[in-house]
Amino acid sequence: MPVDPRQVRLANRPVGLPKDGDWSFTSDPTPEPAQGEFGVRVVYVSLDPAMRGWMNEGKSYLPPVDIGEVMRAGAVGQVTSSNNPRFAAGSWVSGAFGVQTSAVSDGAGVVAVDPSVASLPTFLGTLGAPGMTAYFGLLDVGKAVAGDTVVVSGAAGAVGAAVGQIAKIKGCRVVGIAGGPEKTRWLTEDLGFDAAIDYKGEDVRRALREHCGDGMDVYFDNVGGEILDAALTRLARGARIVVCGAISQYNNTEPVRGPSNYLNLLVSRASMTGFVVFDYARRYGEAAAEMAGWIAEGRLQSREDIVTGGLDAFPSALLKLFAGENTGKLVLQVGDVDA
Amino acid sequence: MPVDPRQVRLANRPVGLPKDGDWSFTSDPTPEPAQGEFGVRVVYVSLDPAMRGWMNEGKSYLPPVDIGEVMRAGAVGQVTSSNNPRFAAGSWVSGAFGVQTSAVSDGAGVVAVDPSVASLPTFLGTLGAPGMTAYFGLLDVGKAVAGDTVVVSGAAGAVGAAVGQIAKIKGCRVVGIAGGPEKTRWLTEDLGFDAAIDYKGEDVRRALREHCGDGMDVYFDNVGGEILDAALTRLARGARIVVCGAISQYNNTEPVRGPSNYLNLLVSRASMTGFVVFDYARRYGEAAAEMAGWIAEGRLQSREDIVTGGLDAFPSALLKLFAGENTGKLVLQVGDVDA
Repeated sequence: MPVDPRQVRLANRPVGLPKDGDWSFTSDPTPEPAQGEFGVRVVYVSLDPAMRGWMNEGKSYLPPVDIGEVMRAGAVGQVTSSNNPRFAAGSWVSGAFGVQTSAVSDGAGVVAVDPSVASLPTFLGTLGAPGMTAYFGLLDVGKAVAGDTVVVSGAAGAVGAAVGQIAKIKGCRVVGIAGGPEKTRWLTEDLGFDAAIDYKGEDVRRALREHCGDGMDVYFDNVGGEILDAALTRLARGARIVVCGAISQYNNTEPVRGPSNYLNLLVSRASMTGFVVFDYARRYGEAAAEMAGWIAEGRLQSREDIVTGGLDAFPSALLKLFAGENTGKLVLQVGDVDA
Repeated sequence: MPVDPRQVRLANRPVGLPKDGDWSFTSDPTPEPAQGEFGVRVVYVSLDPAMRGWMNEGKSYLPPVDIGEVMRAGAVGQVTSSNNPRFAAGSWVSGAFGVQTSAVSDGAGVVAVDPSVASLPTFLGTLGAPGMTAYFGLLDVGKAVAGDTVVVSGAAGAVGAAVGQIAKIKGCRVVGIAGGPEKTRWLTEDLGFDAAIDYKGEDVRRALREHCGDGMDVYFDNVGGEILDAALTRLARGARIVVCGAISQYNNTEPVRGPSNYLNLLVSRASMTGFVVFDYARRYGEAAAEMAGWIAEGRLQSREDIVTGGLDAFPSALLKLFAGENTGKLVLQVGDVDA
């Protein structure tokens, strides 16, 4: 069952939102796996806000994707042929295979995936990098404990939905911020959040005052901008702000908007801490096992928003993230599950 | 030796820099000390950047000074008459006596001062709130340890000069940021800083790159604004930013400038933490004893910039802080040491 090899490559460094012309499509042959390597046919490609940062020049926590390089992406696929004893042909794997239909890997950063535990796209969401981000960001960086009031922005996204649910499991009061009544309803009615704020329809600052009378102990920030500034006005004494991302700022053509209310960190004896989930790679197994248990018990829901249309749909699918059109983990399907 | 009672009161909430008309001068009699109280003739009044915040309306770590109220200030004075067994007439004390020539106190927050340990103004500087701020901010909040590169802004001010010297004593490499060649020379030649950057004459970002090749482990921020943004570009992995103040922003008539480079907290897995020194009040004794020892050994220098002219000089003296005209602790003398 050979796959037609196709790749999406970065053609230009975007200014503002990525445009169609910032991508190029190629059909280069995939190299044969050398000793220690294996071939993968890619089925699901992860779409992440962080991708926008990888497209920029300059130092960050990962090097930028080079012009002409296959776009970096997490993906789930099936091993087609293997010269690596850790990964047998026919088995399912997750790794940074990129936005392409087939890949060759030496196994670095690749983990085996068990389709009997959860559906394949869940390994790009709640049981993948977003889930790990939520788990370690909330518990390790944010140090959330039972009784805390936890507020999370981007709450209907892959990371945010997991943050809120894990916080509930740990005994916290949880308020989510998301865009539109459908998302907020999903958060409170399906996921069990205590409250949800629709930033498109409500004054966030006023709503936070209403829902966090005693302030927030943890604010998990995925969005930056005005919402971060609003959150800074409602910190409890000793609050922890977890800086996970700033999707509102990634496509800015002007400088990033810094949080003007940051001096409330002083008034509230609060902290703001950044982290990169890869630093926790050695503990992913521990977190994934605990989270798989919660999924099995029905306490942790995973939702994926799957875009079909193959690689051609990649440019427009990525834009859905920045328009806030996805609920749950946004995934692009580029191959068939049953080959 | 009776003192003519005189007070400086807040007349208006300033917009931007405080103007003469924002103050009123009164000569109201000082009440007689009741049971448990004592009278103080005030000799030295502390001038602090934080005063600007106390003049604003709105919630902060202390309530605002009311219109018509004596301006809040730390001060050193001599007990004139006492109905409080802890404070004998003739002894020297430090407390929040306000901008006035005489005061009555019930002893709350007042500490005895021993003029044989250091000169009286030092108890408003290195052995007072600025020294405590430096000590706990650097060691407790910033967690500076031997081998760290510590950068401090406002380095020639009362807090900054103490931060840098304590960091040197603890085995850190220290870079100070201050305005003008006289201040930077004082930092490196007299106080032993490893390097100093003149923000008025140098590109701070470039100078930080030069002096902090491996990044900074601790950045102690007294100034905010552009310098904070420059510092955010030079963080070492796991760096701690101590948010002590933001003197560049206190007289803004526009919103505070938030740090646009705050997403480097994420790239560098760094934190930014605010604190209020009063929270450490129970440990002041421990810190003051250690610091008095360093002073006695000649390892910690204290410098005060003493403005004479009495209460009338208060409005203009306060402005010296915001113009960056002081080196070391700025103090207003409002009475004679020998009465």
